[in-house]
Amino acid sequence: MIIMNTDATPEQIDQVVKEIKKYGLRADVSKGKYRTIIGLVGDERKAPFEHFAALPGVKEAMAVETPYKLISKEYSKFFEGEMEKSIVKVGNIEIGGNEPIFIAGPCAVEGKEQLLRIAEEAKKAGAHILRGGIFKPRSSVHSFQGLGSIGWEEAKTALSWLREAGERFNLAVVTEVRGENQVDLAAEYADILQTGTRNMYNQDLLTKVARTKKPILFKRHFGAGIEEFLSFAEYIAAEGNKDIILCERGVLPVGKGKNYTRYTLDLAAVPVIQKETYLPIIVDPSHAAGRHDLIFNMSCAAIAAGASGLMIEMHYNPAEALVDAQQAITPDELKEVINACQKIHKITKPGRNEEI
Amino acid sequence: MIIMNTDATPEQIDQVVKEIKKYGLRADVSKGKYRTIIGLVGDERKAPFEHFAALPGVKEAMAVETPYKLISKEYSKFFEGEMEKSIVKVGNIEIGGNEPIFIAGPCAVEGKEQLLRIAEEAKKAGAHILRGGIFKPRSSVHSFQGLGSIGWEEAKTALSWLREAGERFNLAVVTEVRGENQVDLAAEYADILQTGTRNMYNQDLLTKVARTKKPILFKRHFGAGIEEFLSFAEYIAAEGNKDIILCERGVLPVGKGKNYTRYTLDLAAVPVIQKETYLPIIVDPSHAAGRHDLIFNMSCAAIAAGASGLMIEMHYNPAEALVDAQQAITPDELKEVINACQKIHKITKPGRNEEI
Amino acid sequence: MIIMNTDATPEQIDQVVKEIKKYGLRADVSKGKYRTIIGLVGDERKAPFEHFAALPGVKEAMAVETPYKLISKEYSKFFEGEMEKSIVKVGNIEIGGNEPIFIAGPCAVEGKEQLLRIAEEAKKAGAHILRGGIFKPRSSVHSFQGLGSIGWEEAKTALSWLREAGERFNLAVVTEVRGENQVDLAAEYADILQTGTRNMYNQDLLTKVARTKKPILFKRHFGAGIEEFLSFAEYIAAEGNKDIILCERGVLPVGKGKNYTRYTLDLAAVPVIQKETYLPIIVDPSHAAGRHDLIFNMSCAAIAAGASGLMIEMHYNPAEALVDAQQAITPDELKEVINACQKIHKITKPGRNEEI
Amino acid sequence: MIIMNTDATPEQIDQVVKEIKKYGLRADVSKGKYRTIIGLVGDERKAPFEHFAALPGVKEAMAVETPYKLISKEYSKFFEGEMEKSIVKVGNIEIGGNEPIFIAGPCAVEGKEQLLRIAEEAKKAGAHILRGGIFKPRSSVHSFQGLGSIGWEEAKTALSWLREAGERFNLAVVTEVRGENQVDLAAEYADILQTGTRNMYNQDLLTKVARTKKPILFKRHFGAGIEEFLSFAEYIAAEGNKDIILCERGVLPVGKGKNYTRYTLDLAAVPVIQKETYLPIIVDPSHAAGRHDLIFNMSCAAIAAGASGLMIEMHYNPAEALVDAQQAITPDELKEVINACQKIHKITKPGRNEEI
Repeated sequence: MIIMNTDATPEQIDQVVKEIKKYGLRADVSKGKYRTIIGLVGDERKAPFEHFAALPGVKEAMAVETPYKLISKEYSKFFEGEMEKSIVKVGNIEIGGNEPIFIAGPCAVEGKEQLLRIAEEAKKAGAHILRGGIFKPRSSVHSFQGLGSIGWEEAKTALSWLREAGERFNLAVVTEVRGENQVDLAAEYADILQTGTRNMYNQDLLTKVARTKKPILFKRHFGAGIEEFLSFAEYIAAEGNKDIILCERGVLPVGKGKNYTRYTLDLAAVPVIQKETYLPIIVDPSHAAGRHDLIFNMSCAAIAAGASGLMIEMHYNPAEALVDAQQAITPDELKEVINACQKIHKITKPGRNEEI
Repeated sequence: MIIMNTDATPEQIDQVVKEIKKYGLRADVSKGKYRTIIGLVGDERKAPFEHFAALPGVKEAMAVETPYKLISKEYSKFFEGEMEKSIVKVGNIEIGGNEPIFIAGPCAVEGKEQLLRIAEEAKKAGAHILRGGIFKPRSSVHSFQGLGSIGWEEAKTALSWLREAGERFNLAVVTEVRGENQVDLAAEYADILQTGTRNMYNQDLLTKVARTKKPILFKRHFGAGIEEFLSFAEYIAAEGNKDIILCERGVLPVGKGKNYTRYTLDLAAVPVIQKETYLPIIVDPSHAAGRHDLIFNMSCAAIAAGASGLMIEMHYNPAEALVDAQQAITPDELKEVINACQKIHKITKPGRNEEI
Repeated sequence: MIIMNTDATPEQIDQVVKEIKKYGLRADVSKGKYRTIIGLVGDERKAPFEHFAALPGVKEAMAVETPYKLISKEYSKFFEGEMEKSIVKVGNIEIGGNEPIFIAGPCAVEGKEQLLRIAEEAKKAGAHILRGGIFKPRSSVHSFQGLGSIGWEEAKTALSWLREAGERFNLAVVTEVRGENQVDLAAEYADILQTGTRNMYNQDLLTKVARTKKPILFKRHFGAGIEEFLSFAEYIAAEGNKDIILCERGVLPVGKGKNYTRYTLDLAAVPVIQKETYLPIIVDPSHAAGRHDLIFNMSCAAIAAGASGLMIEMHYNPAEALVDAQQAITPDELKEVINACQKIHKITKPGRNEEI
Repeated sequence: MIIMNTDATPEQIDQVVKEIKKYGLRADVSKGKYRTIIGLVGDERKAPFEHFAALPGVKEAMAVETPYKLISKEYSKFFEGEMEKSIVKVGNIEIGGNEPIFIAGPCAVEGKEQLLRIAEEAKKAGAHILRGGIFKPRSSVHSFQGLGSIGWEEAKTALSWLREAGERFNLAVVTEVRGENQVDLAAEYADILQTGTRNMYNQDLLTKVARTKKPILFKRHFGAGIEEFLSFAEYIAAEGNKDIILCERGVLPVGKGKNYTRYTLDLAAVPVIQKETYLPIIVDPSHAAGRHDLIFNMSCAAIAAGASGLMIEMHYNPAEALVDAQQAITPDELKEVINACQKIHKITKPGRNEEI
């Protein structure tokens, strides 16, 4: 990590970047209001920090030994407070800002009418972003894989419905990309690209989505510890894309016997991650629970734990959904969740003491 | 399970109990306002339900195949609504009632002055029950095992401090029993007996504490699924003791790499268990997190998830504590937690819709 | 699943395939010596089995409800014994045949001299296949990612070394592909394509490697149950590629405290999987243990459990290796492992009773 | 840890023990052939090692910071090679010696005839020790809890059958104690006392069984890491009882979906524990697998991994067993297992190189 002087010139910055490349490393240049920080990407053991420290315009050069340094709180501290917590902006929506953000929609996009009706209901209930799966990563090859898996034309059509639903009801839209080949197409239509829990470790996909420069909704793998989760978020940051929205969605349940939920929501990950990184983190209670009757309580708990938002599956008639029918809630239930969460957020948000 | 007629006589009930015993089973007799239900304890495969159904005073006799039937919601339903959710009463404190209950105190009792001072602070902050460990179950034989492990006299003295602290500040008191031999002694001094996470599977201890007829604070093992947790609570209920306070305290963390918390708090267990059983469930965020800086958020999240109370480690000077110093919060922090939790409870409690 | 008559004509088979496609499903046609079996790929709920059963040449048509039917023992049974256990052939090497197969080599290919020397030692020790990583999937973006990650030319060069080493010492070669874009290139040089533990769930990658028609060495994810492992192997089979070599390489360790091994080798998975599927399964003790001093015992244990082979990291000077230096064994140790395993295989292999 | 001079007198040793007690610690005195080692039991932070080092007869005094020092390889090293690996002797049976030891018998003792017949078959098949559960720790209070749970007389009778069966067929006998109150009774009849997986953390029980001075068969908890397992074995050693036979019996399975085995046998724990401690370790494949058709392979794998013995459930008619019927093997199968294991042991045992 190389910290430039506040009056370092662009030429000096360029020179440092060039020097870094000589050693087989890449440079991550972050320009703050007051100063520029250059993070090294790659195996730092090769880096001659004393040599870097002596270059013109350099204030300090030091090794940082953590697998997630570009997204770490430590990194943001060098900007002297201005980036303590970053906000990911999507249009006029601020994820990680003063209000919790609600993403709602069907598990899978099944048709235009379905999607428009759900979008309208989501908007009315108070949601900000519309979700809808077009490329579904399913455990069984014998399950419905989403409209996007039928063919290229079907994928385009479904994506255009998503775009249209978002525009008509003034909602940003997010959709998942499952493989590298879908990235460019999805980026044409969606405001935010999502990568799924099973793709957390797919570094080639992460690199590819990062390069679209779109905000990335990055889900934790259900078998991954927090350190691993952040280490793979670093793959996105290493491409210069810091618009990362982390998402906790449940980890493998412990113990023998009947599973009452699909996964175990690890809500302590929310405040832990907020101490480790400046990135915002949201929670998906729907996939964690796998049952609609827990969504109210687990949504409230997630916001109480400090989450910057929620991603919830909603359907006007859950029983009809082709995928995960038992976990979607109704528009009325969504409204109740959002109302309760907004109240709780006021009680638990950082800076609450000044107001209460 | 045998459901008696509303006008069944005590003699008829006695006769059913006698018949049950003939088949090597025990009878769990629960008298409701309107009717009596008799649960069978033991291997029901031997039970002649048709024969039981024909006994005088019997309305219905049926097999129930779940390892936790005496504490199940199904069981309580036969009382026709009156026992939908049970309340464990300790003096005038109601666990599972309309208000969340707060248990606070040191991890281990270390001295009389320490304990009195913490009790006073707990009371001022709004707590209802004082906790304090005297027999500590530690992972290493080379760690401090609590004053009670030094000798019998030391155990009595420490227990009398706990009793005195409770009485002086009008707090009920709870302490953990680690082995069968400590049960009778602890029952003389404590209002509630606690069994620890590592003893969840210790059925001989559970049977023994149940027989004291005291309320039992029963912690989940960190490697146990919910079905196992409830199946072992059934060992307490099988002794005729239904004053069971369940406690979620975190399960084994998933994944590789650094652990940022000691355990993973499974908050979805709270609403799940409330749908499976009529027993109240509380949460211990202190042992789950293992760090004081997460207690505020995780306490709020637990109440938002629906918990009937919290058990929190508090110390006037956490750094001084001999055991788990890094996880205790201060009296001021406890007060802030209780205030926020009481507000959240109003937003999320059952029946909230009528009020909001 | 549609079982054709032994005398069904090619035209009849074609007609069945056409009918299947009408319902949005794909057909997996397996021609045995005596009869042809057609598996349905996709959501079978739409399939009109009675209609299929009435088509000319069809003996039987039935729904099979398991997420891994194309690779299941049930499926192979319809061939009347001829495919009870399949053998994957690579040149004259038979994986799943009468002798255990040994794959050895460096974790990562680092240079031509290194590779040739290791290949020579592997051959001398008795290995059949040379492994060498060129595209390394690492947890940290700041670690060495393999020569293939530097650029396209470096990838080609490293792959050509692998090819050359294999040819010079008469070893088949296997290398890992990490992302979809590497598949075609790697397929030009390698005899077997490997997908890594972190890519087990990467269905777009699995589909792509399957289509090369090369044998696929398919590793279990460290957080995946056996049912999931086989369900994702089904993605490869669904492309018509049944040359799948399953590989157990350790799952997440349980419990608190120090980890003495990187993962927990699940050796019972070997006989379990051999009862569930006709595919061969091998074991990678190196990545599971993460330490060279356990390789002898865990290799012997894997063969005793019934594995059809082993994949072991070997280096003439382990301390020198850039990746996972502490887990490679020496050529002499490899020889000792192979000798002991061959003896154990004679004791434990199926059909042992006839010989002993 | 205090290492005495080779010529230290008994009086000098006594003085050191007295000094240790002054600091609230206990002394574990181990007399080797050449010298005596005194381990400190309790919180060493209070111990004045410089003061101890200056006492007459003391060669060296040092702090050892591990939760399992009394059973560690480090500890045994001070005896200069004579105790590199300890052997637990039961009559003329040596557990941890040159031959693998086989423990076989029914899950639960159900009757005298059953037991005698199984004992006879076990002996014929080559087993050394007879197992039989009398106090069964079951997950459900509604399951059969063993004859010993019916009453004190039934317990005595069943224990006497076990004793008689052992004597008649020249087999040592082992039985499980589940609660503290059963320890003295069981110790009258059994050669080895077993504590179950669910009681690994039950330190009051461990302390009590240790004091019988009988050899203890100590099973790992299914949710415990190796460090925890050894830390709780230390509770037994801390009472001066080093006749501990460790037993690996499977840990919680990972992942979603159907479980094909009840637990995941962690065979790498065998060589790991042999490097950490001088105690012998055996394996219980029956409870890990929960199915008889995996016992041959998993037994062979356990011995190949280096286990000093096996504990296997055997029944002349498995389908008849009241508990765990699906996991017992027949006498013929047991014989086949023992034969194969003895051959494998010759191939994999330490010192094999001299012979091969």
